[in-house]
Amino acid sequence: MTYLLAINCGSSSIKGKLFGIPKSKSDSLDFQSSLEVVNIGSKDEKVKIKITWEEGKGENLSEEGKNGDEVDYESLIPFLLEHITSSAKSLKKEDIKYVTHRIVHGGTHTKGIVVTKEHEEALEEMDKLSEFAPLHNHHAVVAVRSCLDALPDHTSLMVFDTLFHANIPEEVYTYALPPPDKELVMPLRKYGFHGLSYASILQSMAYQLGKKEEEVNIVVAHLGSGASACCIKGGQSIDTSMGLTPLEGLIGGTRSGTIDPTAIFHLTANPAEGVDFKDYTVSKAEILLNKKSGLAALAGTTNFGTIISRLSSSADCSKEDHEKAVLAYKVYLDRLLNYVSQYLFKLLSDTPIEKIDGLVFSGGIGEKGSKLREDVLSKLKWLGAEIDTDKNDGKHTGKVTEITTQSSKLKGWIVETDEEGWSAKLARDEFGF
Amino acid sequence: MTYLLAINCGSSSIKGKLFGIPKSKSDSLDFQSSLEVVNIGSKDEKVKIKITWEEGKGENLSEEGKNGDEVDYESLIPFLLEHITSSAKSLKKEDIKYVTHRIVHGGTHTKGIVVTKEHEEALEEMDKLSEFAPLHNHHAVVAVRSCLDALPDHTSLMVFDTLFHANIPEEVYTYALPPPDKELVMPLRKYGFHGLSYASILQSMAYQLGKKEEEVNIVVAHLGSGASACCIKGGQSIDTSMGLTPLEGLIGGTRSGTIDPTAIFHLTANPAEGVDFKDYTVSKAEILLNKKSGLAALAGTTNFGTIISRLSSSADCSKEDHEKAVLAYKVYLDRLLNYVSQYLFKLLSDTPIEKIDGLVFSGGIGEKGSKLREDVLSKLKWLGAEIDTDKNDGKHTGKVTEITTQSSKLKGWIVETDEEGWSAKLARDEFGF
Repeated sequence: MTYLLAINCGSSSIKGKLFGIPKSKSDSLDFQSSLEVVNIGSKDEKVKIKITWEEGKGENLSEEGKNGDEVDYESLIPFLLEHITSSAKSLKKEDIKYVTHRIVHGGTHTKGIVVTKEHEEALEEMDKLSEFAPLHNHHAVVAVRSCLDALPDHTSLMVFDTLFHANIPEEVYTYALPPPDKELVMPLRKYGFHGLSYASILQSMAYQLGKKEEEVNIVVAHLGSGASACCIKGGQSIDTSMGLTPLEGLIGGTRSGTIDPTAIFHLTANPAEGVDFKDYTVSKAEILLNKKSGLAALAGTTNFGTIISRLSSSADCSKEDHEKAVLAYKVYLDRLLNYVSQYLFKLLSDTPIEKIDGLVFSGGIGEKGSKLREDVLSKLKWLGAEIDTDKNDGKHTGKVTEITTQSSKLKGWIVETDEEGWSAKLARDEFGF
Repeated sequence: MTYLLAINCGSSSIKGKLFGIPKSKSDSLDFQSSLEVVNIGSKDEKVKIKITWEEGKGENLSEEGKNGDEVDYESLIPFLLEHITSSAKSLKKEDIKYVTHRIVHGGTHTKGIVVTKEHEEALEEMDKLSEFAPLHNHHAVVAVRSCLDALPDHTSLMVFDTLFHANIPEEVYTYALPPPDKELVMPLRKYGFHGLSYASILQSMAYQLGKKEEEVNIVVAHLGSGASACCIKGGQSIDTSMGLTPLEGLIGGTRSGTIDPTAIFHLTANPAEGVDFKDYTVSKAEILLNKKSGLAALAGTTNFGTIISRLSSSADCSKEDHEKAVLAYKVYLDRLLNYVSQYLFKLLSDTPIEKIDGLVFSGGIGEKGSKLREDVLSKLKWLGAEIDTDKNDGKHTGKVTEITTQSSKLKGWIVETDEEGWSAKLARDEFGF
């Protein structure tokens, strides 16, 4: 058997899925195992590594290793590859024929890019784009190089979070800015991110609705530690909340989202100063706004479940933490509603509500946040949204769960996203297996 | 007779109105004359000065003076005061008993502040706030001092554009930012601006509708060279598009409006560097985003009428200018619709559409932009908005013009704003005349 490995490097994590490649193009990929490494770079927490094999296919691994700041992507990737190939019965390194890498920023590229040991030029370009996704691109590039070194016989496909938004109209992606006074690798405009997730959600929704993708009209809120919203009309992204970088738009675990563009100059005296971030240098502004803001700044925690548990005045926390949690939740809800309403409005301006397939919640917070979903949908009662509390509060099985009543005019959904699965699909399209 | 002078210093202009104070509190102020100075600080244009008296009350002035960069607020104010008092029949400087000054940023102040020759402490505080309205506050403070020097027997009232937004909910005005690492005169939050205009519009709409102000629910787009939108519910601002400074939100003549908060670090290598702006120092970022962006950056002109005239492919301009105008208009419309839709949704989430009094257009672009109004309202057809093309395209007389049909479920309006008139009203409330 030959294999495909889908790797997804986050700002402090590596996720991955290993698939067996079927003999026939019409068969599904054969899921083998999932990998997860968290807390990379953390000063206070230990790195946790987890490899989970499908029954009988290999030996699981679950260990707490060194401190987060003692490891790096460069050493973790070979370690993971070594472990996968040694812990499975008959999997050898040369059996891994394809590796996909999720790269956050793909600039103006409208399709994935193939990289092999002899053709690494594109990697340099991607690393230059790190300027615009400083907490992501560079690590993903490191991961691509590590794989090229460690796996003797494979082809890499870099897939981009920006791809899904490639057809956003010019008037939506254009900023009203003068020309830059320094040379840039790409234009200053909105790009949008979370595209692999949106593409995966769109596919699941089309399947659920029994429609073609190009007939699907939805507003999606992808709410994880990074959060964004997307307006999908006729199967295409026509607007999304993230911008030039993943910073713009909704509040994230540690991201400010949209603020007055000059606020940063009042927050700190020297925002343009370079700061070390792992093995890369980024501006102080980027660290403050991407890593020190958001829910962490408002509530003192990035854990949305903790914030929810502190909302009750009888919660087991200090009065101050309770009050911070209440404000953080309200701010989060306010900003989310602003984007949801903009995007519903964009659809409704020329599409009757019967042809709008609803509002989708996804990502960790989207999937777990039943109160948040209820609060959002209750603000949409005037549009005919009617939540089904049992479904909303109950256990969700399968990829798609409907959370509104049968008679609800505007539907609500929870959709499990699968960025690695979508990356693998893009590789099948590219290489024709 | 005694007089009240309402002064309104913009970033490159001075506007003013002179009123006679009636004997009885129940009588209206007696409008005497209006003043206007434009192009202050401009390198390319001459300063234009205009004083227009009501029939028989004084001698009009209309002159083109020195180049814009050869004059300053400090010398213009005494010149204007000298001229007013010498060109009217019996008006002496000591007859001007009250002067109101529009100050853009009032920080957390919830009412106007009185300043007299002996009590100038508040002026220093206002000048400190110049950090947050660098293109406005400082010049207004200069104007207050000039009046204190030039008018022997008056009391000044500083009124703030932030006042009208003083009751915006905490979750709306809060940014998800960590504490600043430098000392600030006020918290980093949304304040909102154009408040004197919104208050004036609210009053006009309440009068038009025969309602109390606290019963009025409207979304207002104040579209001048600075542009913002406001959601007014029960006579109170519950959200507005400008933020910590007037930069956030909609695109202005030279303002970028909301962009990715890190975009400025890619636009220029040294955004925090200080740059001279008239007699004040501001950051390069503030100059670039407030004075070099917006319509000027997109279309090469800040004149909205010129942009509209270039939309036709047979327009008398280069192909490039035509294409720029088309894009600028579309971007402007897209951003405007985003805020209008957010704010309509905020109202609709708990108020039936019958109790929503409509969408108001104001400011130079709002009053003159019939195509813009039509394009906005056509996107609201699904909510029952039905434009009356004759009224929309016709000549508007009076303060309030309805531009939708009688059967329109959502009403559209043009309202002439009167910031100086509202400032004068605040002075009457404060001083009880």
